[in-house]
Amino acid sequence: MSTQDLRVGIIGVGMMGADHAERVAHRIAGARLVAVSDPDTARAGALAARYDGARMIADPLALVADDDVDAVIIASPGFVHEEQVLACIANGKFAMCEKPLTMDSESSLRVLRAERDAGRALIQVGFMRRFDPQYAQLQQLLASGQLGRTLLLHNTHRNKTVPNPEFRSEMIVRDSLVHEVDVARFMFGEEITTIQVLSPAPTSHACEGVIDPQVAVFTMAGGGIVTNEVFVNCQVGYEVRCEAVSERGTAIAGRPQTGLYTTLAEGGEGYWGGLADPDFTVRFNRAYDLEIQAWADASRRGSVVGATSWDGYAATAVCAAGMESLASGAPVAVALADREILQ
Amino acid sequence: MSTQDLRVGIIGVGMMGADHAERVAHRIAGARLVAVSDPDTARAGALAARYDGARMIADPLALVADDDVDAVIIASPGFVHEEQVLACIANGKFAMCEKPLTMDSESSLRVLRAERDAGRALIQVGFMRRFDPQYAQLQQLLASGQLGRTLLLHNTHRNKTVPNPEFRSEMIVRDSLVHEVDVARFMFGEEITTIQVLSPAPTSHACEGVIDPQVAVFTMAGGGIVTNEVFVNCQVGYEVRCEAVSERGTAIAGRPQTGLYTTLAEGGEGYWGGLADPDFTVRFNRAYDLEIQAWADASRRGSVVGATSWDGYAATAVCAAGMESLASGAPVAVALADREILQ
Amino acid sequence: MSTQDLRVGIIGVGMMGADHAERVAHRIAGARLVAVSDPDTARAGALAARYDGARMIADPLALVADDDVDAVIIASPGFVHEEQVLACIANGKFAMCEKPLTMDSESSLRVLRAERDAGRALIQVGFMRRFDPQYAQLQQLLASGQLGRTLLLHNTHRNKTVPNPEFRSEMIVRDSLVHEVDVARFMFGEEITTIQVLSPAPTSHACEGVIDPQVAVFTMAGGGIVTNEVFVNCQVGYEVRCEAVSERGTAIAGRPQTGLYTTLAEGGEGYWGGLADPDFTVRFNRAYDLEIQAWADASRRGSVVGATSWDGYAATAVCAAGMESLASGAPVAVALADREILQ
Amino acid sequence: MSTQDLRVGIIGVGMMGADHAERVAHRIAGARLVAVSDPDTARAGALAARYDGARMIADPLALVADDDVDAVIIASPGFVHEEQVLACIANGKFAMCEKPLTMDSESSLRVLRAERDAGRALIQVGFMRRFDPQYAQLQQLLASGQLGRTLLLHNTHRNKTVPNPEFRSEMIVRDSLVHEVDVARFMFGEEITTIQVLSPAPTSHACEGVIDPQVAVFTMAGGGIVTNEVFVNCQVGYEVRCEAVSERGTAIAGRPQTGLYTTLAEGGEGYWGGLADPDFTVRFNRAYDLEIQAWADASRRGSVVGATSWDGYAATAVCAAGMESLASGAPVAVALADREILQ
Repeated sequence: MSTQDLRVGIIGVGMMGADHAERVAHRIAGARLVAVSDPDTARAGALAARYDGARMIADPLALVADDDVDAVIIASPGFVHEEQVLACIANGKFAMCEKPLTMDSESSLRVLRAERDAGRALIQVGFMRRFDPQYAQLQQLLASGQLGRTLLLHNTHRNKTVPNPEFRSEMIVRDSLVHEVDVARFMFGEEITTIQVLSPAPTSHACEGVIDPQVAVFTMAGGGIVTNEVFVNCQVGYEVRCEAVSERGTAIAGRPQTGLYTTLAEGGEGYWGGLADPDFTVRFNRAYDLEIQAWADASRRGSVVGATSWDGYAATAVCAAGMESLASGAPVAVALADREILQ
Repeated sequence: MSTQDLRVGIIGVGMMGADHAERVAHRIAGARLVAVSDPDTARAGALAARYDGARMIADPLALVADDDVDAVIIASPGFVHEEQVLACIANGKFAMCEKPLTMDSESSLRVLRAERDAGRALIQVGFMRRFDPQYAQLQQLLASGQLGRTLLLHNTHRNKTVPNPEFRSEMIVRDSLVHEVDVARFMFGEEITTIQVLSPAPTSHACEGVIDPQVAVFTMAGGGIVTNEVFVNCQVGYEVRCEAVSERGTAIAGRPQTGLYTTLAEGGEGYWGGLADPDFTVRFNRAYDLEIQAWADASRRGSVVGATSWDGYAATAVCAAGMESLASGAPVAVALADREILQ
Repeated sequence: MSTQDLRVGIIGVGMMGADHAERVAHRIAGARLVAVSDPDTARAGALAARYDGARMIADPLALVADDDVDAVIIASPGFVHEEQVLACIANGKFAMCEKPLTMDSESSLRVLRAERDAGRALIQVGFMRRFDPQYAQLQQLLASGQLGRTLLLHNTHRNKTVPNPEFRSEMIVRDSLVHEVDVARFMFGEEITTIQVLSPAPTSHACEGVIDPQVAVFTMAGGGIVTNEVFVNCQVGYEVRCEAVSERGTAIAGRPQTGLYTTLAEGGEGYWGGLADPDFTVRFNRAYDLEIQAWADASRRGSVVGATSWDGYAATAVCAAGMESLASGAPVAVALADREILQ
Repeated sequence: MSTQDLRVGIIGVGMMGADHAERVAHRIAGARLVAVSDPDTARAGALAARYDGARMIADPLALVADDDVDAVIIASPGFVHEEQVLACIANGKFAMCEKPLTMDSESSLRVLRAERDAGRALIQVGFMRRFDPQYAQLQQLLASGQLGRTLLLHNTHRNKTVPNPEFRSEMIVRDSLVHEVDVARFMFGEEITTIQVLSPAPTSHACEGVIDPQVAVFTMAGGGIVTNEVFVNCQVGYEVRCEAVSERGTAIAGRPQTGLYTTLAEGGEGYWGGLADPDFTVRFNRAYDLEIQAWADASRRGSVVGATSWDGYAATAVCAAGMESLASGAPVAVALADREILQ
């Protein structure tokens, strides 16, 4: 591994990008924050000013091309990902791109072809759950064969609330369920072949017209089945679980009563339990640290870890089928390109 | 309530009937075991000999008609239930009939019509989970409205093993999933309108040709959705859970780590946990006691508690649709008679 | 076992006695409530009127002597226990006496001598935890030898609140810690040789001058050590736990998160957990049922189960030493009579 | 904070020091490993060769004095700590010294006086539990006052096994219980005034003559009481817990069933649970990372975080009293110097 620190530029400094800036500046060994970019140049400038050695570069493509930037974290909105990811590949720079890789399967295929033509993989997609210690441990347990073949997964994904009035049912598929899509592929080590999205009578806490919760069913290439609950206005807190059912046992990642366990006299009754995590930044704070550390280490070694462009492409393709199913209620087959000819 | 003990006759003294005999004889207040009947008269005679005051009556319909029998527990095979239940109604005797009420919807309707014509309800169907303290508490919590409207249920139903070579995939629907059918109707207080049974690649521990595990999805009349896993060869133990997802919170009945909690050095590693229940007789032993006590108390008062003939009929109708869906993989609508004209 | 129901009389119909009356009348197989006695004859009369076949007998010793009473539950205040227990022995009647057996060691010895002279054991002392499924299972696990020799116990005993202004520090030893005394003797199968009661700075929720919580340390005859926390104004709920530490593993009875498990949006945060039990009648409701059922069954067979007069005597002797230690803070040796000459 | 990386030297490269070397080299932001020292120069040289930019310096005091070393981690045996710590202070270098600070109270006082004379604090003592997320969260909860005043702590400290035949009972006090000493002082924010160490009949898995487990009781300056179990041959795994009992609730750090939760068919029964942590390096891996990151950050800012020299001194003084109590069984008062004159 290079003895030089990896000089990191970050595109997009909203909540996620600002979080990564703090991470790279103070918690990641062997990496330094050198540049940030954002259409809101005032915000980007203010952020750069907080970190010694970091500067603002208004144009994201100029940041990618800058000689002082070794590698890039893309935390911009999804609709500009394709251009930025392709620029990274063109400049031979490693990038960690938050999901979605791009907005549709066609554009994701363009990314895959660009990597093929460049002769090397450069892109990691930000499915951070692969780095959560519990999810990672579960995947290792399943891959070890200790429990026999995996038969079923049951995924639970709950957010406290989404007050945004512009929120749409499709965003549950694209922004929340997409994590379960990657979890299913990660745990089984197989592609998803069909997806069905069911629409229960919605909670009254969802905005008008939004179908929340949603129940999705995946069929895996080897015949396994995955049930998924996504509920983004559950009112309680952030809760993410995965239960694997295998031939010789079951295992759960994300059981909620971890951490501090408290009894507390509340009103007239005694509660026994803990606080639910308030949101994903708290729940997956450690996973993000491990993800970015692993990315920085791999980038310095010249390799890619975690979810690849193919994983990003497959997730996009499954979600496209999922949005079709959300409209019809029927199962929809997932169409994937031939992986061979993209390598 | 009458000060006289309820004199109970039991039809069928296989595992379940023998268990009920011991229960009535020794653990139920206000009830006495007075008669048992079984096609295996030797077995029935031996059982009767174990309990003072109990005698064997070879003919089950004679047992029903006997003047010394106030009420009947029907624990015989399902295909003789209709005749025995109708005999109880004809004789004006309360009966607790193990599920299924009868073998198909038509015959269950005949039971309902017989009760209507008799002008009174006499039959309780043995869905014991309604008496399990955790399931009962969950139902009360949901019915209280404290969590808001119920949106989803997730049911889990796992048996250790079914070594019987004559076991068929349909029996998972009819004998195991039927409990989840009743749980869904009990928790929601609504009918099931469609059922879909999905067939994952089966475990290698199932007998040849048996689809195990199965995943079933119910749609409730009010738009709620229920996911169900039934896995009868899970190898580990007996585990039954129900997670309700409501507008203001979630609740789980049957979380497994109840009871004694042990660390024990096993081989080279330290296990932390408890033993899974070995089977349903252990898991639901308390529920059976409470069910039969409630039935005996109600019978002495002249009323019926727990699941009614209508509940038994509805479960049969849903399972019939479920078996159709097991064959096709598609959702099947549940056809129910008009409840009004049966009352 | 006799085919006749055991005809039960109850002395004392305060909270505990009234609870037992309801239990015997409706939940205990093979037993009937026939008589109740209480200095408050109006209360006793009202209670008797609620149960067919039960009558009020003003004089408790007349109840004991009554020909229609086969066995007696003594739920009166402790200071009248000696006279009532001795009357039961004189009349050859089985009795279940709530703790304490009597008010001091000398009087408990008189009970032991009366049983010896009568040539048979007739008295069970109401240490109901021996019948709690978890405590019973833990004792069986320890007795099985599966975990090796037991080295330590850690007992926890918490009540929500004791608002009584007449409450005294000594009552924590005599009424609460006494249960842990019996648990320690039950789990180890050995006598306690020394007891030390430590006085932390008390909670401000205790009444003026009351030392609450208290920490007690027992030494067992075989060298084992038992730590005990008793805290009767913990504000949260009722919680009772016992952790055993053995040579090859540990085990806990009474871990709190059994039962229904709920997430609920409360104020601005998501709680995860269940409700603590409100008091001992809820927590040990099942244990009381099992205790009285076992007592009724044993009485009909002519034997005694559960805690014996010796156990009641030993608990009284340990608590006497505990009250001495509460005053001094130093360890106090427990003086027990020679068991041999009392048998 | 300085933009320069902190250049770290490590003295002692046994298990703990080698672990810190890997940590500083790869997981700590803003720090670099530049030097290692060990009496076993071959081992130190091999370790240095694994990390670019790190060299071996045979003499530990030369490492401390080296101009290229900004700060020092002392992971050498306790009996050389005093000299090395004093050298750090003399050279004005920040140091993270693994416990014990020094071998006795007198030598720890010399460290305190050296810091006072130098006019600044430079030493952190390696009580890593203060950085464990659960222990830290518990301390914050208690300090917040949300649960009211703290009344009791119950600490549990279990190791799987200590096969070393040279192991002595005193080492349980000095090397294991010392962590509970710091936890008690950390959680209460008060000094310990008396300590009593009780000696149960030992496990047969301990080496001949070793008292294991041990039960220790601390009295805090404000009247709180702390019970401690230390059991270093528990056979199961590594388990560390702290339960705080406060005026309005209780809280537990370190409940064991965190992480992955598995059912697995083992032999004839179904286990339900997870694996216990094998040892402290796994259990506290995260705490060590956070500790060293916080130390590196603070050193670059010019300050000290975590346990100070005073905390190290107090722990040493309490353990000295503890070893006296281990011999006598009686409570021993802790004698501490006047903190004022040392500041």
